[in-house]
Amino acid sequence: MGGMRDVHQICPRFHAAIELIGARWTGAILVALMEGQNRYALIKAAVPGLSDTMLAERLRTLETEDIVERRVIASSPVQVEYYLTAKGRDLEQVVKTVEAWSHKWIALPA
Amino acid sequence: MGGMRDVHQICPRFHAAIELIGARWTGAILVALMEGQNRYALIKAAVPGLSDTMLAERLRTLETEDIVERRVIASSPVQVEYYLTAKGRDLEQVVKTVEAWSHKWIALPA
Repeated sequence: MGGMRDVHQICPRFHAAIELIGARWTGAILVALMEGQNRYALIKAAVPGLSDTMLAERLRTLETEDIVERRVIASSPVQVEYYLTAKGRDLEQVVKTVEAWSHKWIALPA
Repeated sequence: MGGMRDVHQICPRFHAAIELIGARWTGAILVALMEGQNRYALIKAAVPGLSDTMLAERLRTLETEDIVERRVIASSPVQVEYYLTAKGRDLEQVVKTVEAWSHKWIALPA
């Protein structure tokens, strides 16, 4: 019987992707953006329990990963809005499959 | 303009699901199981960097959530094997969409 060396290791790209998308709060923030919440305060209001620190940190990571784009609106006062990039919008299919699974298997909170 | 109270909150079942599936290492362990690694040492060998403590903890959570089933094989010595339940196998579609996204958007590690 082959030893541990012969065990096929999981796809590193999948692993990087699931850790990125699955990081705490990231999935919820992505859905809030997909549902049109483009302002900081509106994203925060859409995700119960999300702190300012965590939202700021996750938005920075999502920007670095080119999943979210930050736009400064030259109004007075200046406004900042967040939009999904093409890479971010391509996560809609992942979100749909997680939603479908959750509606089948996860009970509504009491 | 409506205040924060009018912001539609994200689906709590989706949120619970993405936090469960997205927890660090969980996605990778699920794929190892889907690829037929049913023994503890084989799951560990399939996921680079995974520690014993983390694997044990994640398997316990996945069992509690009825996503993984633990079977004791009455051989000598006794063997323990892990299998996805129906709820776990239903995550294959989620894994497929994450894999497709990762192959399109995540570069292969150097």
